Amino acid sequence: MMKTGRSACVYSEVESSRLRVPIPLPSLLKSSSSSSSSFHVVDGPNTSAAANPDEIAKLFPNLFGQPSVSFKAGAGGASLPNKSLNIAILLSGGQAPGGHNVIAGIFDYLQNRTQGSTIYGFQGGPAGIFNSKYLILTHEFVYPYRNQGGFDMICTGRDKIETPQQFHQARETAKMLDLDGIVVIGGDDSNTNACLLAENFRANGLKTRVIGCPKTIDGDLKCKQVPISFGFDTACKIYSEMIGNLMVDARSTGKYYHFVRLMGRAASHITLECALQTHPNIAIIGEEVAAKKQTLKSVTDYITNIICKRADAGYNYGIILIPEGLIDFIPEVQQLMAELNEIIAHDVIDQGGSWKKKLRSQSRELFEILPKAIREQLLLERDPHGNVQVSKIETEKMLIQMVEVELENRKKQGKYNKDFKGQPHFFGYEGRCGLPSNFDSNYCYALGYGAAALLHAGKTGLISSVANLGAPVKDWTIGGTPLTSLMDVERRHGKFKPVIKKAMVELQGAPFKKFSSMREEWSLKNRYINPGPVQFVGPTSDVINHTLKLELGSQA
Amino acid sequence: MMKTGRSACVYSEVESSRLRVPIPLPSLLKSSSSSSSSFHVVDGPNTSAAANPDEIAKLFPNLFGQPSVSFKAGAGGASLPNKSLNIAILLSGGQAPGGHNVIAGIFDYLQNRTQGSTIYGFQGGPAGIFNSKYLILTHEFVYPYRNQGGFDMICTGRDKIETPQQFHQARETAKMLDLDGIVVIGGDDSNTNACLLAENFRANGLKTRVIGCPKTIDGDLKCKQVPISFGFDTACKIYSEMIGNLMVDARSTGKYYHFVRLMGRAASHITLECALQTHPNIAIIGEEVAAKKQTLKSVTDYITNIICKRADAGYNYGIILIPEGLIDFIPEVQQLMAELNEIIAHDVIDQGGSWKKKLRSQSRELFEILPKAIREQLLLERDPHGNVQVSKIETEKMLIQMVEVELENRKKQGKYNKDFKGQPHFFGYEGRCGLPSNFDSNYCYALGYGAAALLHAGKTGLISSVANLGAPVKDWTIGGTPLTSLMDVERRHGKFKPVIKKAMVELQGAPFKKFSSMREEWSLKNRYINPGPVQFVGPTSDVINHTLKLELGSQA
Repeated sequence: MMKTGRSACVYSEVESSRLRVPIPLPSLLKSSSSSSSSFHVVDGPNTSAAANPDEIAKLFPNLFGQPSVSFKAGAGGASLPNKSLNIAILLSGGQAPGGHNVIAGIFDYLQNRTQGSTIYGFQGGPAGIFNSKYLILTHEFVYPYRNQGGFDMICTGRDKIETPQQFHQARETAKMLDLDGIVVIGGDDSNTNACLLAENFRANGLKTRVIGCPKTIDGDLKCKQVPISFGFDTACKIYSEMIGNLMVDARSTGKYYHFVRLMGRAASHITLECALQTHPNIAIIGEEVAAKKQTLKSVTDYITNIICKRADAGYNYGIILIPEGLIDFIPEVQQLMAELNEIIAHDVIDQGGSWKKKLRSQSRELFEILPKAIREQLLLERDPHGNVQVSKIETEKMLIQMVEVELENRKKQGKYNKDFKGQPHFFGYEGRCGLPSNFDSNYCYALGYGAAALLHAGKTGLISSVANLGAPVKDWTIGGTPLTSLMDVERRHGKFKPVIKKAMVELQGAPFKKFSSMREEWSLKNRYINPGPVQFVGPTSDVINHTLKLELGSQA
Repeated sequence: MMKTGRSACVYSEVESSRLRVPIPLPSLLKSSSSSSSSFHVVDGPNTSAAANPDEIAKLFPNLFGQPSVSFKAGAGGASLPNKSLNIAILLSGGQAPGGHNVIAGIFDYLQNRTQGSTIYGFQGGPAGIFNSKYLILTHEFVYPYRNQGGFDMICTGRDKIETPQQFHQARETAKMLDLDGIVVIGGDDSNTNACLLAENFRANGLKTRVIGCPKTIDGDLKCKQVPISFGFDTACKIYSEMIGNLMVDARSTGKYYHFVRLMGRAASHITLECALQTHPNIAIIGEEVAAKKQTLKSVTDYITNIICKRADAGYNYGIILIPEGLIDFIPEVQQLMAELNEIIAHDVIDQGGSWKKKLRSQSRELFEILPKAIREQLLLERDPHGNVQVSKIETEKMLIQMVEVELENRKKQGKYNKDFKGQPHFFGYEGRCGLPSNFDSNYCYALGYGAAALLHAGKTGLISSVANLGAPVKDWTIGGTPLTSLMDVERRHGKFKPVIKKAMVELQGAPFKKFSSMREEWSLKNRYINPGPVQFVGPTSDVINHTLKLELGSQA
């Protein structure tokens, strides 16, 4: 039995203070009465796809080409009916700070604008739809989660609605609950899935609409209309608090190199943002490693060179940030993985190591220079999706060991004469469920409020889009972007599959350019910044992340 | 060359906001003018030692028996001369949040009360005295460190002043700088060392006095007069922030057991305090394990039993806190370590394992049930002091592996049918250098102010003692406690050595009693509390740690 509800919860002082804080709304969504005419929906021009529009059009015949929409203040256009709705919400994928406020936003909108509505929460993610597991969200139930971290209100899951049977069951659930709409709160995969559901419902003549919300601490779901995914701001601030503490520690003891691995498997946004917040001596950005086709040896040498230069300058300590997915970005490692996967599937991995003869010479060479512990980890089983379990490979320990070996070589050559001490750290789970920062609290509430408004306006297949985020909350804009317009196709198992492309770190983007213009100075001179713990009141509570600030700035 | 100074530092918004915050002083230390007659020193009755007073008297013939002193408001008693002083400060041992405020307090006292004084900072810890490495602290130099974390103003070190040669050099330095006093900011060992230095100076006719300040995040330097060591409050809050985040994460995903190892090698105060702040499902307190003579197997069974009971109740997740020094508290492990130490010193540890025959049967049995990775770690070299490197033994991973094995057994017996996933964490360095909480900021400033006042009053061999800490800062009391009164002797290498006994978790003390009265409920019902990040403004910024609150309460 899944247990939910915070009725048995004890709140900390900070949690209760957050609970009581009113959440500001963008001005255009505010209204003094329950009149729904204080804003209206405006359609923009029709849209296409991120790439391969013909294929996307075939995959989404009922949705492709829809216009983006935006809300404008005042009466006008199609008026929103004041009738009650049946709306369901689900959380999908890993937690991100702010998810509860998306739900609170949806809830409050429907309470304020569509009186008599029923709001359901599917439990445990997408499986809640096809297993028909849900609960009814009431004010008493929702209130205790306002501004609180986690996804525990209705919990989350990593299932997808994929098989015809699952789509069938989803339709049955939608019919049974007489749903007018579903809001899917998730990352790139979950939003792709939301769009498939929207298409499926429409193709089958169901009235149920589907709206997505952009969630992921990894920051890799974003585009012009959706400038940031929620949770990224808070998670990076939590990691940066810890990194800042390690910096002060390193400076105080003068004898440790802290190697910090940070979440972010596919993209290095978190590492880049934490670097911009804290100014480490080294930060490795996976996208750059891939673009420059770096080898593990060249990454090791890059780190070792800086350690030696710092030794010459009198510093025997430092801070090095590494993205979780680093080794995925290194072509030779990917090659090795692919060969290992193949061998593991067909051969016995014996102690004698005769299986190693099946590796290509370059891969074998790489395998042999890896530290023993890593070689063992590489041979571990894969996750259920057949992926290498990157988060289980302790890249920070691997790099420490490889740097140790290289520094020993240089010692023998008389090029280094210090005592190197590497300290490994992994910051992951700690950042996914923190109390949302003021930015994430407000952003999520607006995303949810907007998602409900989109459903109210009868829209489907859109992702809730809150923009103008550099301005005060009152001036934020609200709208919806067709999910099909964010899509491309990938060929998998001989078929075209729609995908929302992950937003990678752009080497020509403002955040990376800022970083690359500063990193040489940071590497030798210590320009550490210690952001401290997230503050919820006072002027320091309004700081937003550098990535968003720089991306907004470069758009201006 | 050691580099110090924050001139090149960039401050985060939170750091600069902290810099500008005025630090409140206890009323009795305040004065509207520079008149030194606004308070005076009152001697209490003479003191003895914590134990073995005769031996302590022999070791400290010039200091033993001194009275405790307290400061009282208003003129009276011996007036403090308004003359300039030469005072030096040193930081000793591991970092603890607030150290910079101790220095700021000393600095401000001397600036306000003894105009024209010169204040030195010994660099890199006690070695700064015997190597005569120091700098002169000016307002411009000290100011940027106010309310900031770390020990980087003058850095720290782990040396002690031990040999006659080192004492000689320390005297030479004290004479050269014409020092009236030295403040030693450190833990139990460092304060013992401070007292030896005070004795040595006095025995040799030097005018230089020595005052200690109680520092350690581990919380094991405390007594009636010194209710808490500084840094404990902040460090526990930082760890609890992370633990709280993991709790919300565990509750949201419903599939992980997070095993969190926390700093605290000798005593489990940090684990106990974090348990009181966050209400984990399990917290292992080393002192209880030792008192009950538990084995590694019985600790594993205790954890496994709760995991099984939780499975029956529908929970397949949880949070388990473990003190860093746990395995040191387990008698059979200590025995194994001792035997291993002996064997390592005399035998070759070969792959064949013939050396294992030298282990006693119980130790050999224990060694064989340990996970392979741990067996390897146990055989690693010891630290320079010959101690097992406890912080390198990943106790949390060891326990996860042992619990896995035990759960497999129970699965076979049909007593458990879930999928156990343990996630290891170690929170250590992250907590030592955080921005000090309001409590630590204020407490440290008062400790420093008081230490300087004690030197001004001509006192030596005392530890700065700030009490009545449950009251608002204005009502805190200030005084000094003879270090000899905190001492016992230990026999080492055939000689009596003075030691300030580490304050262990008292199984009859209020904090442990509170914990043990609650833990059964916490183990099955989820009473998680998520304290959130440390706040510096607003009502939630005044929360103090539970250990101190409970200990003060039980004294009342």
